[in-house]
Amino acid sequence: MHEGFGGNGMRRLGDGVEAALHCALVLAALPAKKVMSGKDLARLHGLSESYLLKHLRALTAAAISEAVPGPRGGYRLTRPAGQVTMLEVVEAIDGVGPAYVCREIRQKGDVTTKVKCAYKKDCFIKRRMLAAEQLWREALREQTLQDLLDDGEVEIGDENKRTVGQFISENQR
Amino acid sequence: MHEGFGGNGMRRLGDGVEAALHCALVLAALPAKKVMSGKDLARLHGLSESYLLKHLRALTAAAISEAVPGPRGGYRLTRPAGQVTMLEVVEAIDGVGPAYVCREIRQKGDVTTKVKCAYKKDCFIKRRMLAAEQLWREALREQTLQDLLDDGEVEIGDENKRTVGQFISENQR
Repeated sequence: MHEGFGGNGMRRLGDGVEAALHCALVLAALPAKKVMSGKDLARLHGLSESYLLKHLRALTAAAISEAVPGPRGGYRLTRPAGQVTMLEVVEAIDGVGPAYVCREIRQKGDVTTKVKCAYKKDCFIKRRMLAAEQLWREALREQTLQDLLDDGEVEIGDENKRTVGQFISENQR
Repeated sequence: MHEGFGGNGMRRLGDGVEAALHCALVLAALPAKKVMSGKDLARLHGLSESYLLKHLRALTAAAISEAVPGPRGGYRLTRPAGQVTMLEVVEAIDGVGPAYVCREIRQKGDVTTKVKCAYKKDCFIKRRMLAAEQLWREALREQTLQDLLDDGEVEIGDENKRTVGQFISENQR
């Protein structure tokens, strides 16, 4: 499989995206007002706490989670799970910019007209590229942490449901 | 606008993608069998030849274009424009890998079951992330260089059509 020179297909999302989605899902599973510490969230996912804190802070900066300070502190969602979209979590970690960045090379050559109004309309290549990534964005905007909670109900096996549920009960604050 | 810690939204595609799409479009506009040199393609887009050659070679490695060697050589498409999708061009430059890479953190924590069959099915977070990027991929797979040629017919202004057309006539080989 040819891997190209520049990267990986649609370009890899940061690995923090996986961590953030899984942690946001755990926070969504907490009872109202309860928090979980970064340390416990890290333990639950086999991640280092320092690695995870960076991403939990990004979720807080994006107002998806809030941090309750102090020795009994931790993180909780700022909103009900049905009001946090997957797109918000992804963009909190990876930013909101477009994947395709048009540098207007269409008007940089020797022979193209220097009359700027010829380029008032966006390049048609750019328009098609942005329309495609908009489909990705809309698909993730239509899905919420509540959808993931519902998936978990159906898909997580009984043993994991029991042990993870117990971990959450014992470590929520 | 919060830009996150990790990057830019869906992650930026390499800037070679813009160059490759524009060059592929020019190659699509050449008469059958004719080629254009990397130097002329670079001149037409205001790009350095060495920068562009890397991406033209990627298009050739992906069998989208072929290189005719020699002092009168250059690049041409291997197929009619209607048979080259935008996705092929993008993946030739940026690779074919998924944007979301699942590292299976769901099963790496202390409390998750070590019974592997509990994880036979893909993680539901992974499934939703991959389904979203599949929409991006399919949108670009449905569009060909012929669609871009058709856009150009309608959207490129008369002066650019004339000067670019003249450049192509004079520099095709």
